[in-house]
Amino acid sequence: MRKISGSTVRRLSLYLRFLEQFDALGKTTISSAELARRGATTSAQVRKDLSFFGSFGKRGLGYSVPELTARLRDILGLKRTYRVVLVGAGRIGGALVQYPGFRQRGFHVAAIYDRDPRKVGSRWNGLVVRDVRHIVGDLKKEPTDIAIVVTPADAAQDVTDQLVQGGVKAILNFAPIRLAVPADVVVKSVNMALELETLSFALANR
Amino acid sequence: MRKISGSTVRRLSLYLRFLEQFDALGKTTISSAELARRGATTSAQVRKDLSFFGSFGKRGLGYSVPELTARLRDILGLKRTYRVVLVGAGRIGGALVQYPGFRQRGFHVAAIYDRDPRKVGSRWNGLVVRDVRHIVGDLKKEPTDIAIVVTPADAAQDVTDQLVQGGVKAILNFAPIRLAVPADVVVKSVNMALELETLSFALANR
Repeated sequence: MRKISGSTVRRLSLYLRFLEQFDALGKTTISSAELARRGATTSAQVRKDLSFFGSFGKRGLGYSVPELTARLRDILGLKRTYRVVLVGAGRIGGALVQYPGFRQRGFHVAAIYDRDPRKVGSRWNGLVVRDVRHIVGDLKKEPTDIAIVVTPADAAQDVTDQLVQGGVKAILNFAPIRLAVPADVVVKSVNMALELETLSFALANR
Repeated sequence: MRKISGSTVRRLSLYLRFLEQFDALGKTTISSAELARRGATTSAQVRKDLSFFGSFGKRGLGYSVPELTARLRDILGLKRTYRVVLVGAGRIGGALVQYPGFRQRGFHVAAIYDRDPRKVGSRWNGLVVRDVRHIVGDLKKEPTDIAIVVTPADAAQDVTDQLVQGGVKAILNFAPIRLAVPADVVVKSVNMALELETLSFALANR
């Protein structure tokens, strides 16, 4: 398969959301123009995005909503559920644990870790916070693909090393540092200040 | 100025962070190769990104750290501070209000709104939660460029309309809907489930 850009993957996720909304409204077919309008992009872009993954739809008839939905779920790796562990029982961690969108998409936060003895043992959204030193042992017993790192910057690399040692293959990183990982591990970083800088850039360059 | 992609702006933000770290270490010049290595990109990409904004650096000598820092702060609209209002006093809102990275970058959360009468009047990080119906009036008195929308989906468009009416020009949106805004207002959406789908895509397509 060709290399797919992050922005293409992001649009595929959005198309899937729109398709689910169309399905809920009882629509069975959808044109690239309709998908484009919802996604604030062009029909050509929609067709190009979908063409990466083979041939969809019929000229003049549009795409079958259930077929394209199933195909996008497949492409995005959403035909299964994922066990997710979260490290860092702070405010953002607390917000993420309760985030309804994760479970709806099949991402189940199954364990939470922290290094603060005052937090270890406390209950969080039905889970008991465990000590970070159990990470590797726990992961060996319960294989886990995805971890969310929400620790302070100074703890994030050490935690990441343990997650990788435990077999985690994908990390969503909220700590404000670049994590070093082996080539077979994927890291996606989220930085709220960076998001605001996208806006300040837009305001400064109008 | 040419159209600059979101991913270029994101890299500029990262370069600025690296430059600040180099400055803290007492380095006065930096090569495109060093910036590229820190940013997991190529020297050619660094030079291309910076070339959008005129000529920087001297061949063989690299970039002056203080000069490039100042230029990037200027480009990213960070030579001033921004008044920011936040709508939605829930868990994610609570995490964002205390996010240290915002204030460091000059983004000052100056007001919080909610529609829930049980939350209105309560203190949040030194601010008193105000009723959403005061948004337009408050903004007319205290002009504000940036708003963060952290409401449920069903409230987000109404809140956005009020923010726009009050003169807000940039919105960071955490609600899981696409917001309709006039052409002179910029919206940046953050969707945590979408971030995880980037990871499930990577896991499914290795």
